[in-house]
Amino acid sequence: MTDSVKRGLRDHLLLHFGQHAKLRDGEYPLVIDRAEGVHVIDTDGRRYLDALSCLFCAQLGYSYGDEFAEAATAQLKRLPFNTNWNTAHPPAIELAERLAGLAPDGINRAFFTSGGSEAVESAWKIARQYHVANGQPERVKAVARRTAYHGQTLGALALTGIPALKDPFGPPAIDVARVPNTGEGDLEFLLRETEETIIAADPGTIGMLIAEPVQNAGGCFTPPTGYWAGLRELADRYGFLLVADEVITGFGRIGEYFAVPEVVPDMITIAKGLTSAYAPMGAVLVSDRVAEPYFRPGQALSHGITFGGHPLAAAIALRNLEIFERDKILDGVRELAPHLRRRMHELHRLDVVKDVRGDGFFYAAELDLADPAQIKGAIPRRLREVGLIARADDRGAPVVQIAPPLVCEREHLDEIVDKIGNVLGEFLQEH
Amino acid sequence: MTDSVKRGLRDHLLLHFGQHAKLRDGEYPLVIDRAEGVHVIDTDGRRYLDALSCLFCAQLGYSYGDEFAEAATAQLKRLPFNTNWNTAHPPAIELAERLAGLAPDGINRAFFTSGGSEAVESAWKIARQYHVANGQPERVKAVARRTAYHGQTLGALALTGIPALKDPFGPPAIDVARVPNTGEGDLEFLLRETEETIIAADPGTIGMLIAEPVQNAGGCFTPPTGYWAGLRELADRYGFLLVADEVITGFGRIGEYFAVPEVVPDMITIAKGLTSAYAPMGAVLVSDRVAEPYFRPGQALSHGITFGGHPLAAAIALRNLEIFERDKILDGVRELAPHLRRRMHELHRLDVVKDVRGDGFFYAAELDLADPAQIKGAIPRRLREVGLIARADDRGAPVVQIAPPLVCEREHLDEIVDKIGNVLGEFLQEH
Repeated sequence: MTDSVKRGLRDHLLLHFGQHAKLRDGEYPLVIDRAEGVHVIDTDGRRYLDALSCLFCAQLGYSYGDEFAEAATAQLKRLPFNTNWNTAHPPAIELAERLAGLAPDGINRAFFTSGGSEAVESAWKIARQYHVANGQPERVKAVARRTAYHGQTLGALALTGIPALKDPFGPPAIDVARVPNTGEGDLEFLLRETEETIIAADPGTIGMLIAEPVQNAGGCFTPPTGYWAGLRELADRYGFLLVADEVITGFGRIGEYFAVPEVVPDMITIAKGLTSAYAPMGAVLVSDRVAEPYFRPGQALSHGITFGGHPLAAAIALRNLEIFERDKILDGVRELAPHLRRRMHELHRLDVVKDVRGDGFFYAAELDLADPAQIKGAIPRRLREVGLIARADDRGAPVVQIAPPLVCEREHLDEIVDKIGNVLGEFLQEH
Repeated sequence: MTDSVKRGLRDHLLLHFGQHAKLRDGEYPLVIDRAEGVHVIDTDGRRYLDALSCLFCAQLGYSYGDEFAEAATAQLKRLPFNTNWNTAHPPAIELAERLAGLAPDGINRAFFTSGGSEAVESAWKIARQYHVANGQPERVKAVARRTAYHGQTLGALALTGIPALKDPFGPPAIDVARVPNTGEGDLEFLLRETEETIIAADPGTIGMLIAEPVQNAGGCFTPPTGYWAGLRELADRYGFLLVADEVITGFGRIGEYFAVPEVVPDMITIAKGLTSAYAPMGAVLVSDRVAEPYFRPGQALSHGITFGGHPLAAAIALRNLEIFERDKILDGVRELAPHLRRRMHELHRLDVVKDVRGDGFFYAAELDLADPAQIKGAIPRRLREVGLIARADDRGAPVVQIAPPLVCEREHLDEIVDKIGNVLGEFLQEH
């Protein structure tokens, strides 16, 4: 790491969720300088297999730069910028149409943003206006799961259920009733608890329920069969909207463009994989029913994000979807997912592994640690030493989590699981 | 406009602040297909002088695509993505250092986001954590100006003062005390009212005051000399942080990189001009004093945006700043600003023009209309018919507003003012 990079880190760049005190002790974070295939390479030339797709984003890995540069160049030369603020441009229009074609039936409209938090904020604002337009302004509450993560801006943060992230910021911007994570019990328990919570909160005051098809925080909680059908039934019975937060699960993470099983939600929030992170972009996909009030005379959609639907980002998202199709990215995930499942479940042989869960290319190993602090100390350090980027975190439970690029070969997946197994095995011997 | 564009608009794209009902009547919004210099060109080949820089963003106009494509290509090939989540990459580090060099003394740190709303949300979260870390968790309120616009996500929207934008979304996420716009009175009145509001709200409960150097909403309110020094004094006396929202005024709009006169604020929010809109990006610039708590052992910055500091956006922002310097963009604004001021003030010759105000390349003509609805109907339609994009809006007062690309020549500025004068003159004759 050069002195100028060190100086920049110490004196100028504020890291997100950064532990800046360490910088003063000469302990620097990973600084990634370049990337190829499914590997990232730091400023000292060390190479890491990125088993987390850079926070669940880099579905295509890092070697499609040439193609995206071509798409970016064409768009930057033709129309570098225009908004969606009551005006539009072809790339956003084309992308909206393309997404409508991929989304479940009845979901045909896209409202674009620059990322996931903004997508979730937009879903909430669209839900609120839907109810107001339909004579139910009293639907001011939301329902979300206990440790769910839905973003960081104050509206999205209100829906997020992780207390440590919310503490310093006062009362939540939205009144949210909490229901269990799908890991907490069987189908009957989950739906009963959810319905009881809804009834206790007064069903007529609930605007929407938001949940991830596979919940990330806490570690890859998959739903039991029937869960989403149950949520759909509750939404219909009590008149609120059902929102699937697919910021992580969308675009192939579970082997499909969208991961909500069984039913059609009213809105779907997306970001990350929409561009495979080659540009910042998010969106909320909206059903025709929920969009209908905006087509009434005099009724405007009261929400806007200047950069939402940015032509450069839209051009990159379109190219991303083209590559998904041409290179049969989903087929690759579906083909290798059973292998990854088998390999991840082999980790059960280690006493420290309490549970393995997940789906597609998205898994967590929950650990049974004597000292919970190890999950943020020794374990991630060891993983990095063996050249692997995975998430070691504790949001409700200590987990090691992976979400490999969707272009991983069988050998990459084996390397990921082997390295996690070795690190946890060595760790066991020492503790 | 092709049938496929029309179908996309009718069936798939949700417009920000869109009046979608008009689509069903066959009335389509402007769809911009390409752009060159300071002009945008719609799908039917009609050409418009973009006197609003596409919502105050396109400082360089639209003909730098080749250069930005070169920067984008190099970055997409080398490192298409990495985060700032307790990890970093050279383009974000370099950009943070570059911005520190441009910002007022003492403001040396950057927290990156993907746009203005996220930048404002970040400023609030940083302010909150600053006070909590310094033993003043009770500083939970904010102060903002009456009709100020600070963004659309729930935290930013709480700071925004335009009731119509807030109505459907329930109680604001932040308790905000309102102070006058600078248009409402002289220096003494403004500072006295502000201080009285602060005292009434209980000064010990105030976390920050946010204001634009030149307020956009309501129409380019410039501050009287001494106003920002007065705000700085109030902030210091009562222990809250002073935040300059430079999302619109930053990067040359008023002829300087930053427009806060006289004093150094504690934080500066930026977006739009940071990249001249060639990519989505925002940031909050933070003083060393406000960043200090994050350098205490064990103290993390509890906030994060996955796409914040995106390498592609950072590379484009860096190129933007290079071009600003090389092509002496600020000099151009400073040189032509007196001419634009003179020309805009000539509009006073029209009875319909009640006031002309602004600074740099940022002006509003406030109108005296018999029917306030005209500001959103006949006037913008006429402006468009004569090939001019300007803002005709009513947020507190009906105004026609311009913020031309900073690369405009004298002839462009003359054309803009002439066309506005002609449209308002004709309009007068008819009403």
